[in-house]
Amino acid sequence: MPNDWSSSGFDLHIDIGTAGGRRAGLELALREAVRSGRLKPGTPLPSTRGLAKELGLSRGTVSAAYDQLAEEGYLTVRPGSGARVAEVPASDPAPAIPATAPATPRHDLRPGLPDVSAFPVQAWLRACRRVLGSAPPRTFGAGDPQGQPQLRAAVADYLGRTRGVLTTPDRVVITSGFYQSLGVLSRVLTASGIGAVAMEDPGHNVYREVVQRAGLATPALTVDARGARVGSLAQDIGAVVVTPSHQYPTGVPLHPERRQALREWARATGGLVVEDDYDGEFRYDRQPVGALQGTAPDQVVYCGTVSKTLGPALRLAWMVLPRHLVGPVVRAKQETDMYTETIGQLVLAELIRTHAYERHIRSARLRYRRRRERLLEHLAAFPALTPHGVPAGLHTLVTLPPGGMTEQQLMAACADRGIAVRGLTELHHRPTPGTPGGLLIGFAASSEHGYPIALEALSSVLADAAR
Amino acid sequence: MPNDWSSSGFDLHIDIGTAGGRRAGLELALREAVRSGRLKPGTPLPSTRGLAKELGLSRGTVSAAYDQLAEEGYLTVRPGSGARVAEVPASDPAPAIPATAPATPRHDLRPGLPDVSAFPVQAWLRACRRVLGSAPPRTFGAGDPQGQPQLRAAVADYLGRTRGVLTTPDRVVITSGFYQSLGVLSRVLTASGIGAVAMEDPGHNVYREVVQRAGLATPALTVDARGARVGSLAQDIGAVVVTPSHQYPTGVPLHPERRQALREWARATGGLVVEDDYDGEFRYDRQPVGALQGTAPDQVVYCGTVSKTLGPALRLAWMVLPRHLVGPVVRAKQETDMYTETIGQLVLAELIRTHAYERHIRSARLRYRRRRERLLEHLAAFPALTPHGVPAGLHTLVTLPPGGMTEQQLMAACADRGIAVRGLTELHHRPTPGTPGGLLIGFAASSEHGYPIALEALSSVLADAAR
Repeated sequence: MPNDWSSSGFDLHIDIGTAGGRRAGLELALREAVRSGRLKPGTPLPSTRGLAKELGLSRGTVSAAYDQLAEEGYLTVRPGSGARVAEVPASDPAPAIPATAPATPRHDLRPGLPDVSAFPVQAWLRACRRVLGSAPPRTFGAGDPQGQPQLRAAVADYLGRTRGVLTTPDRVVITSGFYQSLGVLSRVLTASGIGAVAMEDPGHNVYREVVQRAGLATPALTVDARGARVGSLAQDIGAVVVTPSHQYPTGVPLHPERRQALREWARATGGLVVEDDYDGEFRYDRQPVGALQGTAPDQVVYCGTVSKTLGPALRLAWMVLPRHLVGPVVRAKQETDMYTETIGQLVLAELIRTHAYERHIRSARLRYRRRRERLLEHLAAFPALTPHGVPAGLHTLVTLPPGGMTEQQLMAACADRGIAVRGLTELHHRPTPGTPGGLLIGFAASSEHGYPIALEALSSVLADAAR
Repeated sequence: MPNDWSSSGFDLHIDIGTAGGRRAGLELALREAVRSGRLKPGTPLPSTRGLAKELGLSRGTVSAAYDQLAEEGYLTVRPGSGARVAEVPASDPAPAIPATAPATPRHDLRPGLPDVSAFPVQAWLRACRRVLGSAPPRTFGAGDPQGQPQLRAAVADYLGRTRGVLTTPDRVVITSGFYQSLGVLSRVLTASGIGAVAMEDPGHNVYREVVQRAGLATPALTVDARGARVGSLAQDIGAVVVTPSHQYPTGVPLHPERRQALREWARATGGLVVEDDYDGEFRYDRQPVGALQGTAPDQVVYCGTVSKTLGPALRLAWMVLPRHLVGPVVRAKQETDMYTETIGQLVLAELIRTHAYERHIRSARLRYRRRRERLLEHLAAFPALTPHGVPAGLHTLVTLPPGGMTEQQLMAACADRGIAVRGLTELHHRPTPGTPGGLLIGFAASSEHGYPIALEALSSVLADAAR
């Protein structure tokens, strides 16, 4: 293998042209590699003996080429330490990498994110060691488009125990996040002839876009103090996406009568209910409301994720499907990316199996409950602001009084202070001037240390606004 | 948090109905949980004191409910060790999980797969520990849709050195596999108004389907002993997918004159060249041919993957893009799944940075070279079979003589013996009865131990066939 740079322990591609002689070809190739930045300043080059052997040249030829390039300033050659790439400005200097990922704000009060500073790094590493230490070789081969059986079994067991979900592992599909779950499911619905999926208003705008990209209409399902007004669902709507445990963004649970009405609508029309249980693990005043799926497993697709419990970086989520949808959804998932990566799935399965996952959630729940109480204490100083929803989840919606600062003004004032919150307006399907503004204040995203500071900063902005 | 089963260390959802009294409600809920299989046989229940506190019931109520269920056979209660779920058959027993992932064959001679029994588990774990041990909390938050900057920098450096790719990290996009790369890119091409993407014939049928699903036509680009016949590319073809280092499946590199012609076609027509460098790391007789991208970085999208070096389970791949395509491709990737999971990306970046990745490849290269030689030795006993291609990659194509056993018959004979190889016919765009059959024999997928045994089994099938 003539391209082995044995002495430096890595490979280098150089193409030696034949015109003009081999020494000139080597010089040209090295010059171009340095000039283009492919060979970085300071990189050690192979010994003359090593490179000569690998390229089938004489050692003298390589040595002469090195000397020539050293004279030209491309290399530095020191007796004893060999040749290195000199500090030559590359012809096309690398521009700074554009930050396509959002930067972490100074005061992180974004909704929908857990406190990732509490990510269980040690538990993750231990589980990773256990899982990979005993993994059969096929673990690193082709994965399962439906998800690793170990994770599907762990998820089925976990959801049955903690969320009242009725399932078996063969009805669980693992995906790379709820965003992907909804995209895959939307394509299956489109292919099955469905043309419209009702979505809560207000609701998550990003997910509306996912459904729309699959070619589906997203008629508005308005939300009131009892959650989604499911009585208004048309007969010809093929499916509906709801957040029954804790409506996003208002924070109200779907009223029992509405749950019943939704099940009846699904049974009567054959419509499908997509239950987005995005933060169902977090209820602070009582036992969480069980998943809707548990009472209508043939009408409901239950969707969960680790993005709100461990962190979105893992890209791991699950769907529990009515049996007839398993095949189509697995095929659609396969057409997207073959399957979700295996190692993360196995580590998560191990964390669930050993209850480390639930211990992490319980610990987070205690902290978030206190944080929510602190937020409400702070907000109590501003009686014009109305907090909504039950003690649950990772955020609280606050609506703004008419006549005071607008949402836009408040958001700008927050941004000036480095406070990241989210505005309510964009979550409405068709915001009108009359729509009351609001802020979604996330109490989970900060670190324990940063949270009180973030709250003080927010209070100070609100106090200015109230003046 | 009334749903904490403190004594057992996990959460259980139970919904106590209000009709019929709370004791009856608790009994009903527990009965249903056991019957449905949500509570598995042998699961310990919380202490009566613990559950009473959590549900806001008296201890006597819980105790009475436990006793009732024990009488009914749902629980077993032993003084001192508490209550457990009894062995009750669930009403809807879980069917066996269907194996949607292909099983590992007894003799694995599939093309396109590395020897995953050599996956560098210890190096992976070490890198994982190093990376997570020092990771800032934001690591577990939202990822970068373009890919983690650390991995993009490592990939840009690695590809420049080893494959002659000319790039900076801001032109690298990380995806969850080449399959996803091609899907994302195809959607961008469709959106830009391109209607057809030429694809090699024979070529990978699965990737043709990916391109077609984006709404693109895939006119055939025939292949001969000098690789793809790029001279036949029409002016109005918007893009072409090629495998210049090692044509899949024939194994020939694209001839220098053809490379030149392809660049000229791209410059003259504005067409885009998609370079699928699926196994460019593996050349056994000489320095690998540098990537086409290195000589036409504004016309070529370079695609690579770790599926052929480490294993497909990781779902990690990269694209190096002309600058004008970076924005559209990152947006299309984001619309697919937001971003690829972060931990695997960081671990891979660390493996590349420390050259552990290249050490792994060099070691594999030595083994695969020997394996290819052994395969050719075995095949030499069957002069009617014609091996194709240069010493490179993970497979060798063998075409069959007319008049002998057909591809279909040989494949069936192999399958009978537990030998997995791949047929050539399905790789043709429009196989006709006159198309010569062939086998793609992968020499990498087996373990070191299993490979000679697999070769013996194959030889025995071929000997039977030659009789």
